[in-house]
Amino acid sequence: MDSWWITGFVDGEGCFSVSVFKNATTKAGVQIFPEFVVTQGAKSLLTLKNLQDFFGCGRIYENRRKDNHRENLYRYCVRSKKDLREKIIPFFEKYPLNTSKRQDFMVFCKVMDMIENKSHLTPEGLMIIRELAATTNRRKIRV
Amino acid sequence: MDSWWITGFVDGEGCFSVSVFKNATTKAGVQIFPEFVVTQGAKSLLTLKNLQDFFGCGRIYENRRKDNHRENLYRYCVRSKKDLREKIIPFFEKYPLNTSKRQDFMVFCKVMDMIENKSHLTPEGLMIIRELAATTNRRKIRV
Repeated sequence: MDSWWITGFVDGEGCFSVSVFKNATTKAGVQIFPEFVVTQGAKSLLTLKNLQDFFGCGRIYENRRKDNHRENLYRYCVRSKKDLREKIIPFFEKYPLNTSKRQDFMVFCKVMDMIENKSHLTPEGLMIIRELAATTNRRKIRV
Repeated sequence: MDSWWITGFVDGEGCFSVSVFKNATTKAGVQIFPEFVVTQGAKSLLTLKNLQDFFGCGRIYENRRKDNHRENLYRYCVRSKKDLREKIIPFFEKYPLNTSKRQDFMVFCKVMDMIENKSHLTPEGLMIIRELAATTNRRKIRV
């Protein structure tokens, strides 16, 4: 798999998102959940497996469709902050995205930096993270 | 733009389709309409323009959304059989697709060959083209 092929594919099918969930058991009262995801139908599951092998991290999840007439979707997800920091982010810094997903990626990196610097433990930092996170979660669904 | 980036992006967002329309003014009574399309939202329109520059052919069309709250979609389309034959097909032969779109591309090339050989002018050839065309037209819509 060529590295630029991967960037092109992720420009098309990838997503860098950050979710913020309430979680009273954490110091900040919330859990911040950065995620890199690439989605494909069953027919291109092998491509997701190749991506997983290439990056050497992440898992593939099956999303069952309610409509049985359509093929199931599969999601290659990297959720480990360590893997995101050490494998995913350096790759896309070396082979930059071309579409508007480049902005999503920059926001994603900014949030990762803020988590690393414990900014999410201050109310101001958490507010900024929430605002940045909201920009990465546009609803993108294929029917 | 790196060539492998383009293949990766087209593996994600591209489509090779063949449509068959009734048209009494043609010899075969039908018009066969092969098309290479890449679709993006307004925010990545520049990427489509870069693709158009790279291939040196094709046009960009705007698809207005009925829902005004969503950004308009843009389609980079190559419909000229000459451009498909001389520019698009040779590119994807040199930089092959990785996902299930590789099969779509092979079917597309087969139909293009059959048109070139005038196979669509015989009932048997036209039947095969219709069957091949049907496999390239799965409904793929983003909501």
